Amino acid sequence: MISQSIAALTKTSRSPLMDAILAHAEKATAVFTRLYPDAARASAAYADAMRAAGVQLSPLAGLPVSVKDLTDIAGETTLAGSTILGAMPPATADAPAVQRLRSAGAAILGKTNMTEFAFSGVGLNPHYGTPANPADDSVMRIPGGSSSGAAVSVASGLCVAGLGSDTGGSIRIPAALCGIVGFKSTARRVPTAGALPLSTTLDTICATTRSVDDCILIDSLIADEPLAVPALPLNSVRLAVPGTVVLDALEPHVAASFSAALARLSRAGAQVIDAPFALLAEAAALNKFSSAEAYSWHRALLAAHEDKYDFRVAKRIRLGAAMSAADYIDLHRQRRDWITRMERELDAFDALVIPTVPIVAPPIADLEASEEAFFKANALLLRNPSTINLLDGCAISLPCHAPGTLPVGLMIAGPAMADAKVLAIARAAEAALRQ
Amino acid sequence: MISQSIAALTKTSRSPLMDAILAHAEKATAVFTRLYPDAARASAAYADAMRAAGVQLSPLAGLPVSVKDLTDIAGETTLAGSTILGAMPPATADAPAVQRLRSAGAAILGKTNMTEFAFSGVGLNPHYGTPANPADDSVMRIPGGSSSGAAVSVASGLCVAGLGSDTGGSIRIPAALCGIVGFKSTARRVPTAGALPLSTTLDTICATTRSVDDCILIDSLIADEPLAVPALPLNSVRLAVPGTVVLDALEPHVAASFSAALARLSRAGAQVIDAPFALLAEAAALNKFSSAEAYSWHRALLAAHEDKYDFRVAKRIRLGAAMSAADYIDLHRQRRDWITRMERELDAFDALVIPTVPIVAPPIADLEASEEAFFKANALLLRNPSTINLLDGCAISLPCHAPGTLPVGLMIAGPAMADAKVLAIARAAEAALRQ
Repeated sequence: MISQSIAALTKTSRSPLMDAILAHAEKATAVFTRLYPDAARASAAYADAMRAAGVQLSPLAGLPVSVKDLTDIAGETTLAGSTILGAMPPATADAPAVQRLRSAGAAILGKTNMTEFAFSGVGLNPHYGTPANPADDSVMRIPGGSSSGAAVSVASGLCVAGLGSDTGGSIRIPAALCGIVGFKSTARRVPTAGALPLSTTLDTICATTRSVDDCILIDSLIADEPLAVPALPLNSVRLAVPGTVVLDALEPHVAASFSAALARLSRAGAQVIDAPFALLAEAAALNKFSSAEAYSWHRALLAAHEDKYDFRVAKRIRLGAAMSAADYIDLHRQRRDWITRMERELDAFDALVIPTVPIVAPPIADLEASEEAFFKANALLLRNPSTINLLDGCAISLPCHAPGTLPVGLMIAGPAMADAKVLAIARAAEAALRQ
Repeated sequence: MISQSIAALTKTSRSPLMDAILAHAEKATAVFTRLYPDAARASAAYADAMRAAGVQLSPLAGLPVSVKDLTDIAGETTLAGSTILGAMPPATADAPAVQRLRSAGAAILGKTNMTEFAFSGVGLNPHYGTPANPADDSVMRIPGGSSSGAAVSVASGLCVAGLGSDTGGSIRIPAALCGIVGFKSTARRVPTAGALPLSTTLDTICATTRSVDDCILIDSLIADEPLAVPALPLNSVRLAVPGTVVLDALEPHVAASFSAALARLSRAGAQVIDAPFALLAEAAALNKFSSAEAYSWHRALLAAHEDKYDFRVAKRIRLGAAMSAADYIDLHRQRRDWITRMERELDAFDALVIPTVPIVAPPIADLEASEEAFFKANALLLRNPSTINLLDGCAISLPCHAPGTLPVGLMIAGPAMADAKVLAIARAAEAALRQ
């Protein structure tokens, strides 16, 4: 299985690796909804043959990458974790992000499982099963969602990257809970074409990876414009720890891991500054885009097939039915105003640092057993990451827990188009956290 | 009074011209809601002094320009043709378009009257009166709206340009009815900041002028990026005359003037091609943005002060109250889809040619006397120009009537960002129509 970064795999032959990966992937439970063994082997063999012929392809060539089943692959119907889209026509083209990964030679290993229609941060799926979080062998814990299979495909060593999406944390939550890296870029940088929408205002196509350098590589391939990520020593960096909402209700292990991470960043030279960011208290009331926008997309399907929806998903979509056009238009205006005020406060800092989520991955059984426990966990999981979608910003979640403990994510976040700076800080922070 | 283009005024001393203009402007009925004689005289004197000192300013320097009272001028409350905004705080800055005109040395002569809140194409205003259309001395005819005062300030020779706005035809309708040029640029090219919104989706800040060259000059000043407008001989140009909706219910004088104009364009070498453009039949059902968006902005004011609204305006705004968020989101999706299909059909042509409006300016008294006549005329006036806002496109209205007859506008239109091509065709067409 894969435990190295993409760069460390440069000299690894792709074909034997792919055979080993496929043997495991075929046995993985609920991670993939579809595998492409022939195409994956062909990509691996091609990468090996080109290397033997002295041609240098992208470092990604011939390595396994997974695609969330939200994103079109030509010739297949995108199911988005549901069972009701099977009668829809197949996609006529790969989504741009998939096409770009293929052009770089990536071996598209399979389509990954997800929260139905991407509408929760937990990752339960009643139709295809819930992939277990690989971080704990003793208890079946949730992987986080909605890009559940994407994160598990990377965390369990089957893929170097999992293409997914992030509307309120759907890449960062499973990355945090599974102990890997998840980067939600500024939404406008990567085309959302060919992806089934949840919130057209907030949806971001992005990926989960094993390291910051892998993340930068994948981002450079799927974005319209690759970033120039500078080397940024931490002693030139001002990091704000917001005191409003995002530190509430931290589980002890999360609080301790977060504090220890801040201490490491300080020791590495970063200025870590407590700042109120009282505006974060307004975020919850503004987070109504997904329900309204999902309802507009789903209402005909819901009317015809509500019995076939995950009831937890249908319940959240139905919340959008009651909103008036005027309220929705006001919401956009209020969001723009909030972003302007937030960006003014962010100007004094290079980035925010926040626990990605306030809890560790709960056991799957607990959330399946109780609707109340499910919705409580879902709200806690979405609370912090969704503020960055609301900000139209960018954020990366890095593992910051001690080895052998349950994963905890440290989120480094900035405003729209601060992607290069956030990734530069993340690269330096990743090195500091490993020391 | 001014009857020449801006270029022809290069050697005209600004100060004596401004004194003559101000003497007339102060007597003009219902055209201006506010005049700035001191600032206008100062701008004129400065332009003369600089010219005497050998400095070459913009050709616009020291010439009178009017600003629709929808657009902020620092230190004053923008009233937008209403009487209920007086208690609002004054604007803290000139709107970007005003600021850019001032930077070019324009003498801002005054703020112009308009349809209340810009919400009709007729130009009646019960609070400040309705400026009479200068094209007919014998009958008081409507100027068209909503940029009524803007068009009359130019058509009556008081200004070289009238800054206004166009959400469904508000620049092109009064330009057509008053016999001048009105250009609705692609909306995103000119900032809408500092303008009171009608439809945030469709609003465009733009201007009415006396000629296409004047229009190009003003556009180059107010847009984020000035255009390079090529010389385009008409014999290289394919013009489509759409057969759906836009030629319905033409008044005989409009039909005759339009036909004669097409014949002149043909004689000048243009290919004038009848094309069905059946998609135009879908436009009316998609034209619901203004009501919904205006309602979101107005609902608190309406609740408090409906009695002080023009009842015709309040009635149209109230139509937006019933729309759901899902319908509004669908409307955006349907519009994008319609634009995609329209752009595909437009690809075969260089521009559309359409009668700007199907009627000549009706008498003011007729529309004041009958609500039915008002709404019928309003719908006819908006029908053709509003399709171009829906298209997110650009369009210019040029006078195409015989001298001595009531004005008729010829609209040349294209898709988003086709501004340079539309203006290039308009420049050639203007020359052909004058022959």
